[in-house]
Amino acid sequence: LQFLYKAPSCKVFFSHDPIKIVRAKGQYMYDENGNQYLDCINNVAHVGHSHPIVVKAGAKQMELLNTNSRFLHDNLVQYAQRLQATLPEKLSVCYFVNSGSEANDLALRLAWQYTGHKDIITLENAYHGHVSSLINISPYKFHQLSNAEQSKSVHVALSPDVYRGIYKKDHPDPATAYADDVKNLIHKAHENGHKIAAFIAESLQSCGGQVIPPAGYFQKVAQHVHKAGGLFIADEVQVGFGRVGTHFWAFQLQGEDFVPDIVTMGKPIGNGHPISCVVTTREIAEAFRNSGMEYFNTFGGNPVSCAIGLAVLDVIEKEDLQGNALRVGRYLMQLLEQLKEKHPLVGDIRGCGLFVGVELVRDRVKLTPATAECQDIIYKLKEQHILLSADGPHRNVLKLKPPMCFSEEDVDLVVEKIDQILTGTLKTLCVCLKSSRNHIFVFIIQNAFSIHFDAYLFVCRC
Amino acid sequence: LQFLYKAPSCKVFFSHDPIKIVRAKGQYMYDENGNQYLDCINNVAHVGHSHPIVVKAGAKQMELLNTNSRFLHDNLVQYAQRLQATLPEKLSVCYFVNSGSEANDLALRLAWQYTGHKDIITLENAYHGHVSSLINISPYKFHQLSNAEQSKSVHVALSPDVYRGIYKKDHPDPATAYADDVKNLIHKAHENGHKIAAFIAESLQSCGGQVIPPAGYFQKVAQHVHKAGGLFIADEVQVGFGRVGTHFWAFQLQGEDFVPDIVTMGKPIGNGHPISCVVTTREIAEAFRNSGMEYFNTFGGNPVSCAIGLAVLDVIEKEDLQGNALRVGRYLMQLLEQLKEKHPLVGDIRGCGLFVGVELVRDRVKLTPATAECQDIIYKLKEQHILLSADGPHRNVLKLKPPMCFSEEDVDLVVEKIDQILTGTLKTLCVCLKSSRNHIFVFIIQNAFSIHFDAYLFVCRC
Repeated sequence: LQFLYKAPSCKVFFSHDPIKIVRAKGQYMYDENGNQYLDCINNVAHVGHSHPIVVKAGAKQMELLNTNSRFLHDNLVQYAQRLQATLPEKLSVCYFVNSGSEANDLALRLAWQYTGHKDIITLENAYHGHVSSLINISPYKFHQLSNAEQSKSVHVALSPDVYRGIYKKDHPDPATAYADDVKNLIHKAHENGHKIAAFIAESLQSCGGQVIPPAGYFQKVAQHVHKAGGLFIADEVQVGFGRVGTHFWAFQLQGEDFVPDIVTMGKPIGNGHPISCVVTTREIAEAFRNSGMEYFNTFGGNPVSCAIGLAVLDVIEKEDLQGNALRVGRYLMQLLEQLKEKHPLVGDIRGCGLFVGVELVRDRVKLTPATAECQDIIYKLKEQHILLSADGPHRNVLKLKPPMCFSEEDVDLVVEKIDQILTGTLKTLCVCLKSSRNHIFVFIIQNAFSIHFDAYLFVCRC
Repeated sequence: LQFLYKAPSCKVFFSHDPIKIVRAKGQYMYDENGNQYLDCINNVAHVGHSHPIVVKAGAKQMELLNTNSRFLHDNLVQYAQRLQATLPEKLSVCYFVNSGSEANDLALRLAWQYTGHKDIITLENAYHGHVSSLINISPYKFHQLSNAEQSKSVHVALSPDVYRGIYKKDHPDPATAYADDVKNLIHKAHENGHKIAAFIAESLQSCGGQVIPPAGYFQKVAQHVHKAGGLFIADEVQVGFGRVGTHFWAFQLQGEDFVPDIVTMGKPIGNGHPISCVVTTREIAEAFRNSGMEYFNTFGGNPVSCAIGLAVLDVIEKEDLQGNALRVGRYLMQLLEQLKEKHPLVGDIRGCGLFVGVELVRDRVKLTPATAECQDIIYKLKEQHILLSADGPHRNVLKLKPPMCFSEEDVDLVVEKIDQILTGTLKTLCVCLKSSRNHIFVFIIQNAFSIHFDAYLFVCRC
């Protein structure tokens, strides 16, 4: 019935056999039959599903007042102050909006207005939101279009991926090499009479495949972009609010000396409540005002959204969730590294705190993406009541970004299950191999695997 | 302090002496000193501020589950069904998003994808939202820019305003005349090799000056637009959900034979909670899916937003708020007509239900906008604890769009106060006239009036 009224372009997880979740608490979700699922996907439920402190703050403020920001309200001021305190000093002006998409669109408007330039540099496989201006700068999306046509004012830079990209871990200086690609793009744009308004990137690419850029890359990019008169926009929609463990913001992983010109926030900011924020410098905000155009957002910064945002910050602090992300994230990485030793399908393990990617490949030299295997694992984990998803340009990266209250016991469970599935998969394959080639094909089809020659050889060796 | 952290482009009401509202109930708001204000502005608090049924529905669902639409949930299906039941049958597919801006941007994306065309026809003084694609089609906004540059794929049609527009009430057929302007625009666009994707209009122009298009206009526009292969988008963000009294949707005022291709909803839909919706036909939704691009919105259609949306529909029904809008709106129009008889400054009274405009002019023939007078009235009403705002291209239209529980007693109060202010203003002016010309100037400055010669003459006669 959901499909009858809901738009057909909107996809659910596990579309062949979707789950009907009726309640959730912490890192657990429950279906209509009372089955418990371990949630390793929902970075939106940042401090845990239905957190009582957040729920209470929202309910209490809803009872009192929920109106637009045409009136003064303490919540708005307090929340802006609290957010500002987590950021470098020069990032001091907040615009409150309703979604990551609204935030990134506003960031572009700020950059266009401040610089007077039009062009945007974005990364390969980037996703920045669903409104039309952001589809234009999201290769992850516009490559899905059958009639894809890249805007002439959008330039796509190499993703700073040291596993699958051109410059790998063994490169002497991948940060400089990838930043030089941005420099070259700027150079080409200038030759064609184009001018750069901004470079935009997630501080860690999420949909793009859980990519962690080499430290120092952002500083070098910022140098090139600033020289061209453009701004640096750090998209923290998926990765901010302590998830990376060592820092509150993921861009801080690049080093203390890096400060973006604009930071956008979203998903985790309201633990599911629609709120988001753009923070920038006074200079850029003044230039935007001087355009003569007022900015008004009906719901943005309303007292309920701000009360919820404040409660989320409170819980992160009180429950030391950033510390938890660091500790549990490190433990998760340890266990995953062991998995990598054991299973050749596991090509790369990368992560910061509770933002982790497991890239599956059929061949560790050629890096052939194990896309079907990845889908298979996700479906099998679902049968075990563990919710995980896959992403990246080849959909071969297991993506872990659970609620921040995720525990070491949860880590034990999910890694154990992945281990079992990987082991089981190989065993089945080996059994099949012992009969006939035809049988393998039968198996392949049944499991929705599309095993290529590389993988076939590998299985033979095991 | 709000200004220190909040972006300078965001304006509050009564910026010289803003109000700090701490709670609100029904049609009343309360400041930090306990003063009660009658709210005639907030169409977002549709069923009344902090309505207990809506608050309870939101709080209850927040306790249970608030997650994205990657999982099945009954609230989403029920809410889509309930909304669909208020609309003509062919409008059967819902996309849930977070704001009117997200809704209108998605409507454009649907139109672009379905038609394969690029150009949009919009109305003079139109406002459709704050994301960049909508600034492009909002003359109300892009005319504010010092470096305004109209996109070549945007065509601005005459606002179907029978008071201040080219074709007035005395025109034999203003609906056809204004629709012919759209026809001509299409013709010109075609001559220049452009193709029309959509015509977009608020069913009643709100920021544009509370303009009520003549019945039959939309049908004729739709004919021309469909002939050009384009779609008709009805923006109900400000005016939907029973506000017009006689109908649930404002586009229905045009006649039973009119059905838009896409309807966008916003502000009142969640009584302040960030939610909005795009409804369209299955055919258009299928074409959008066939583009190959998934549509995903993190917060859109989450169980909390849908629970709140359902509660708002419940309250509209249970408390017969559409009926109330009709009755109280008619009473308001009656009293305002009497005001028009009495005060020459009142040029036009127009309205449907609780969507009412009072256009102030210094000269009823020349229609010279009484902009400063309008501002003065609003500030004086604020001193009397009545919240009203002014809009329209000349900011000379008093805009009434109160919560739908507005009562006849509220009408008595607001009209009485406007009457007193209008009378008082004239008396003070007459007293001043009796002394010297210099004195008038003093008075004028004190009251932030900028009285022109027309008004001056009129005052002399009184």
